[in-house]
Amino acid sequence: MREAFHEQLDAIFDDLTAICGSVETAVRLATEALLTGDPTTAEAVISADVEIDRARERVEDSAFLLLSLQQPVASDLRTVVAALRMVSDLERMGDLSVHVAKIARLRVPNVAVPAEIRPTVERMAQVAEDMVMRVGKIIADRNVEDALALVHVDEEMDTLRRDSFASLLSNDWSHGVEAAVDVALLGRYYERIADHAVSVANRVVFVVTGEHPRSVDAPA
Amino acid sequence: MREAFHEQLDAIFDDLTAICGSVETAVRLATEALLTGDPTTAEAVISADVEIDRARERVEDSAFLLLSLQQPVASDLRTVVAALRMVSDLERMGDLSVHVAKIARLRVPNVAVPAEIRPTVERMAQVAEDMVMRVGKIIADRNVEDALALVHVDEEMDTLRRDSFASLLSNDWSHGVEAAVDVALLGRYYERIADHAVSVANRVVFVVTGEHPRSVDAPA
Repeated sequence: MREAFHEQLDAIFDDLTAICGSVETAVRLATEALLTGDPTTAEAVISADVEIDRARERVEDSAFLLLSLQQPVASDLRTVVAALRMVSDLERMGDLSVHVAKIARLRVPNVAVPAEIRPTVERMAQVAEDMVMRVGKIIADRNVEDALALVHVDEEMDTLRRDSFASLLSNDWSHGVEAAVDVALLGRYYERIADHAVSVANRVVFVVTGEHPRSVDAPA
Repeated sequence: MREAFHEQLDAIFDDLTAICGSVETAVRLATEALLTGDPTTAEAVISADVEIDRARERVEDSAFLLLSLQQPVASDLRTVVAALRMVSDLERMGDLSVHVAKIARLRVPNVAVPAEIRPTVERMAQVAEDMVMRVGKIIADRNVEDALALVHVDEEMDTLRRDSFASLLSNDWSHGVEAAVDVALLGRYYERIADHAVSVANRVVFVVTGEHPRSVDAPA
């Protein structure tokens, strides 16, 4: 019984790792669409999101079945509930990639991000994608050390977001309101992807150690 | 055993109703701070958020205890897991109110929202607050009909968000980039409060009927 439980739990964590891989692709392609203005790539991200949603449903169904049939307690129970939360975070990261892709699509044949602020947006996207990639490994290996290190990567995202605001609101900004609003919202979406990545990493810490590294929720 | 279970479950739903009341206050005061530029009100929202976070932790602890000690199955299990998700949604709505209050605080002694677009922002805030109030009753009464009706209120939010973008991006916009970015982000925050309200309402439908009214997740 207990062995069956852990096999099924491992299968759920394998699914979470796979979903994280899909999210990584979504973030990467959404950024590519954003920086190139390619509508086909934007559409690909938007239409692929349904697969992430379906994968989430499968994980939820497996987790319910596991709770119903095996009735885990203590740390096993916490792990299953944590898996349910991780899959919500991952699905939300997919949705946020769709938001990025939709801004890209809205500005075709132009590119939403003016050249002047492109390095900052590109770096935000890189940090987000890197965090998603790390989270995939963190889930697969249940690696607490790497999970705790992710918070420091997230600090760079905060700095980048501040930098982007400083550019938008400076007197030198010559790209008008539309580009400024796009960049502000894009910053918000990448920041939220990063927040959810930290949240997933924190749940891995909780699963392994039984302790919350800090609030399990993304920072306000 | 079963009776004790349902008493404890009712207590959790009472807590959810109370948290929803705190969120309603947070949304209302954040909007007041935003429209008046009053820093004391903004600070009150920001500092009160820790109470919502603590209330969420208490609900989580109660739900875990219930799962551990009573090992519910089938619809009882679904209800406890739904409660865990509802409390996450509610806490996030509190965080989003804090974001609104922080924009208000950032612009003191000025008001972030230019008079021209004030009616739209005010209406968005009213819709959000109204949705939170309705959700409180929906949780308390487990009212499926009211829960399903909430989707239509959410449609008004979508329209308002589109209206606000049309104003920001029109040639008549004379309030510069900073105000436009503020209004775009405020629109996003109120929209997300509304999304989470719909999400909570959908979970109540699921708890009562065992069916998802549509995707339980907030629309992308």
